[in-house]
Amino acid sequence: AVDGRRLWETIHETAAFGGTPKGGVRRLTLTDEDRQVRDWFRAACEALGCTVTIDDMGNMFARRSGRRDDVAPIAFGSHLDTQPTGGKFDGVLGVLAGLEVLRTLHDAGYETSAPLELVNWTNEEGSRFAPAMLASGVFAGAIAKETALAQTDREGATFGAELDRIGYRGEEPCGARKFSSFFELHIEQGPILQDEDKMIGVVEAVQGIRWYELTLVGQDAHSGATPMRLRRDALVGAARVVAAVDRIGRARPDCVGTVGLMEVRPNSRNVSPGEVFLTVDFRSPDDANVAAMESDLMAAVAEIVSDLGLEGAPVRIWDQPATIFDAECVAAVEAAAEAFGQGSRRMVSGAGHDAAYVARVAPTAMIFVPCKDGISHNEAESSTLEQCAAGAQVLLDAVLRYDRR
Amino acid sequence: AVDGRRLWETIHETAAFGGTPKGGVRRLTLTDEDRQVRDWFRAACEALGCTVTIDDMGNMFARRSGRRDDVAPIAFGSHLDTQPTGGKFDGVLGVLAGLEVLRTLHDAGYETSAPLELVNWTNEEGSRFAPAMLASGVFAGAIAKETALAQTDREGATFGAELDRIGYRGEEPCGARKFSSFFELHIEQGPILQDEDKMIGVVEAVQGIRWYELTLVGQDAHSGATPMRLRRDALVGAARVVAAVDRIGRARPDCVGTVGLMEVRPNSRNVSPGEVFLTVDFRSPDDANVAAMESDLMAAVAEIVSDLGLEGAPVRIWDQPATIFDAECVAAVEAAAEAFGQGSRRMVSGAGHDAAYVARVAPTAMIFVPCKDGISHNEAESSTLEQCAAGAQVLLDAVLRYDRR
Ligand SMILES: NC(=O)NCCC(=O)O
Ligand SMILES: NC(=O)NCCC(=O)O
Repeated sequence: AVDGRRLWETIHETAAFGGTPKGGVRRLTLTDEDRQVRDWFRAACEALGCTVTIDDMGNMFARRSGRRDDVAPIAFGSHLDTQPTGGKFDGVLGVLAGLEVLRTLHDAGYETSAPLELVNWTNEEGSRFAPAMLASGVFAGAIAKETALAQTDREGATFGAELDRIGYRGEEPCGARKFSSFFELHIEQGPILQDEDKMIGVVEAVQGIRWYELTLVGQDAHSGATPMRLRRDALVGAARVVAAVDRIGRARPDCVGTVGLMEVRPNSRNVSPGEVFLTVDFRSPDDANVAAMESDLMAAVAEIVSDLGLEGAPVRIWDQPATIFDAECVAAVEAAAEAFGQGSRRMVSGAGHDAAYVARVAPTAMIFVPCKDGISHNEAESSTLEQCAAGAQVLLDAVLRYDRR
Repeated sequence: AVDGRRLWETIHETAAFGGTPKGGVRRLTLTDEDRQVRDWFRAACEALGCTVTIDDMGNMFARRSGRRDDVAPIAFGSHLDTQPTGGKFDGVLGVLAGLEVLRTLHDAGYETSAPLELVNWTNEEGSRFAPAMLASGVFAGAIAKETALAQTDREGATFGAELDRIGYRGEEPCGARKFSSFFELHIEQGPILQDEDKMIGVVEAVQGIRWYELTLVGQDAHSGATPMRLRRDALVGAARVVAAVDRIGRARPDCVGTVGLMEVRPNSRNVSPGEVFLTVDFRSPDDANVAAMESDLMAAVAEIVSDLGLEGAPVRIWDQPATIFDAECVAAVEAAAEAFGQGSRRMVSGAGHDAAYVARVAPTAMIFVPCKDGISHNEAESSTLEQCAAGAQVLLDAVLRYDRR
């Protein structure tokens, strides 16, 4: 059995890397804070006798040998990067529960049949470099490595240069490594488990996601001297786009639409803004609904720009169709959840996860545990010691069940 | 007569301090670029034998003695700071045409009766530190000096600290100096003179202005995992505020309403934003209309926050009632414009100007010249050599007429 308190203390130990006054974590990918937690993680795995390999996307793999080193490893893990105002659990729980699994096996002297590999994926959040799950996307062959390395943050720094800067561009070509299966534990980031008073979510699918970028161009104009009828105000246009995305997200069941990022230029109190950059995020478990939202968006923006004399059209920069996880991996999670005995249910993930990309190249499933009121991507994100420990225990059990198979 | 070509070359010489690739100027107040142009300006005035005094708000006064040094000086000038993506003429023309007036008198060996003072006001634009015309506001006793010095930019630097940093906090208490009159030449920043093919605007009033700040607070939430009905999206609220301000600005004749600045937090593509900061600018020549727009804004925001489960209410941070200029100063400008003979008309300024504050403590008037298509607060802002020279000539003539009075 895992040591829940040790896991809890480890979570709080790493939360100091980028910890915020409000109890959250700001540890954007490939920043100095990310380097600190990576150095810590490497040392923690090596202390258990694991071999740590870094690939050329900065993904970290800590390998524990099994009785048979000729078979592909059973892998598990998640990510240690966070949102700009993120919590202590999103991603972190999956990696540190994986570490707790390795520590438990180490303490018990338990030898698995297959080797085990604990993974820390780079840039899962997609806050600093778009899209999310960039490095597991390259691992799965869904995103070209050159494209990924050339992605820039909002200040213009490239992913590749930042990887070099923090010293985490490894030698191994990303994707060369093979898994026999992959398990990812994560907080739910939604309210369903709490509402139904269940401890474990057996995740059988991840909804489809599309991301867009839109630059609206009008004309900078003096806020006092320019009559309303002569303006081409890009922010008035952007406001209508935000309203349209919200309306489109509500128009069909089980859909969501969000404008999360917006930059106004020149962003001066007495200038009617000539340019606005914004992003759109659409999701649904039903890919047809995602496509329908895209059509609605294109139509809405075309009308807005023509009404207001602006220029600009949304550019789709990411399309990840809905993912169905592997039946056998899901069954292993379900059996482990039932054995744990504190209630479980099958569910679809609203958030994207590295597991959704890994599912393209290895049998994969996920485990969810509740988080308070479903709040995530928020410094107030919170799960209990018991919930974290339950997730780690089910992860351990699912891995051992899959190993014994 | 002024030397139009010399003025034109001087404008282009100073445009290099903060010059942008698109031909505009980025010279935010109290930045290094502002210090450079200030150093240049001081040297240019001293080369004419003027004495340059700096007050404790960084305002610069270049004094040329008259026959009678016991009377208060006739002052003129404007500002050398610009918008983030500003043009080469806004403010700059008024200061450099003033310099051209001093150079012309110097070359002619002409001695005025009253002393003359050319002024460069600090932070006219209000882009870096709110509100606009901060230092002339202190000069006129309309804004408390302590308040002004404590204003912070969006990065948290204070006005006072930045004044010290660039070495422009003078000894003289701001407002101690008295003027017998003040004249400000400026580009129109609107299309009327060009439309009517007139060279000179005789400005008899400046419209009323109120500025507001609003922070809308909702809840950061995951863009994929949070159902639409559970969101409290501050950006959806802000979008409705932008639409309301635009509607309010159009609801009454001769009114304008603008949201120029907006900051989204945490500003991450996959976070439904929990906080938005934005500013509102309302103006009208009729103060009653400005007050009515304020009531409309308060009602609109109250409805929006209640609909969306947000918190926040607009805070008025600036109120400058409409200004009527001094009849005698306006008459001097009008006589000079008629003598110039290329067409003129009386008009009301849509933009705010330092002259509107100075009018509280000295007889004041303004002179406008056309700018292309009325475009201002824009890198494409443009006036011709002839228009700049015409403005400088009328400024010189108005000052001499007032001096002979
Ligand atoms: N799990 C998680 O929050 N992933 C971030 C990627 C996304 O879903 O937008
Ligand atoms: N003249 C000018 O552009 N002033 C800026 C202050 C304002 O009108 O907002």
